[in-house]
Amino acid sequence: MASKEGILIVLSGPSGAGKGTICKSLLKEIDIQYSISATTRKPRPGEVDGREYFFLTKEKFENMIEENGFLEWARVYDNYYGTPRKFVEETLSAGKDCILEIDPQGAQKVRENKPDGVLIFIAPPSMQELENRITNRGTEDISEIKKRLSCAREEMLSMYNYDYVVINDQVEKAVEKIKAIIIAEKCKIQRSKIDNLCL
Amino acid sequence: MASKEGILIVLSGPSGAGKGTICKSLLKEIDIQYSISATTRKPRPGEVDGREYFFLTKEKFENMIEENGFLEWARVYDNYYGTPRKFVEETLSAGKDCILEIDPQGAQKVRENKPDGVLIFIAPPSMQELENRITNRGTEDISEIKKRLSCAREEMLSMYNYDYVVINDQVEKAVEKIKAIIIAEKCKIQRSKIDNLCL
Repeated sequence: MASKEGILIVLSGPSGAGKGTICKSLLKEIDIQYSISATTRKPRPGEVDGREYFFLTKEKFENMIEENGFLEWARVYDNYYGTPRKFVEETLSAGKDCILEIDPQGAQKVRENKPDGVLIFIAPPSMQELENRITNRGTEDISEIKKRLSCAREEMLSMYNYDYVVINDQVEKAVEKIKAIIIAEKCKIQRSKIDNLCL
Repeated sequence: MASKEGILIVLSGPSGAGKGTICKSLLKEIDIQYSISATTRKPRPGEVDGREYFFLTKEKFENMIEENGFLEWARVYDNYYGTPRKFVEETLSAGKDCILEIDPQGAQKVRENKPDGVLIFIAPPSMQELENRITNRGTEDISEIKKRLSCAREEMLSMYNYDYVVINDQVEKAVEKIKAIIIAEKCKIQRSKIDNLCL
């Protein structure tokens, strides 16, 4: 019997909406493969190649760009970051669901490359709350905070390109909703395994 | 604050797939209004008007047909059966979800009248199992069973007009899936309450 293709779940949303926390929680609760990104930045102490990131040389990364090896990639200052296509496609082909946690720009590129991926926008409970979260992270200076706020407002508007929006007022509730979305997506008529009904 | 419109859930599928059992289970577990059908047949002992059915005269029923008062209706031998539009629309407007359990012909009419309703097809685990269930009901004669089997095969093919298919191999599992579908539908970007984000 042919194995059924897994579902690609893309968690995205503005910085400060809490997508990272939600993703970590979800990974503890359900059987889904986290998509490991590739980067050209140097590993930090404790980071392991193939666990936090695939650490690549600049040349290798640029070759992979040439060969259409990324579902999405971006250059941030001097470093590249990207989602290796092969890792995601092999996971899905093996019948396992795969989750990507990326920024809204990346999510849109994944939509173009993988139209049957499920895009979930993680939204803060309010713009005020988002601003509080960004301001209270404490690690950035004022100009960096302003840039982040302006970027977050832009990113909120991309919500309408997604399939679902989950408002992150409580992490556990948000996680429950995402679990429900994954179950529902598997019941969609387009994805359903109905061969055994022998019509 | 304006109340949010409820979601219309339409449970359908061939006779013998178990939609009635699933619907009863679901009603015990979640807060959803069962759509009460109207009929012109006489009440059976113990049946209460406005609980099992709205019991109408033939004249009243035909007037309501004229006035577009049904989301779907059908004549079965000498009696009419139908889904009163007003009851469903008032439930949804009050912000409450509403569930309809009807045959596939009725489900298609509801789709035309209420395109944002969510159509869920309850499928048997296999055609063999469906045939066993229809055959073992024990109340019908052979020609009635044959008619039901042929009709069920026809109805299985209508599956592709639905949003979701839930295979009823175990009632509890099927109920969990429908609960997930309802949660996911509420997260759909088209249905989401995002006014409070004050973009």
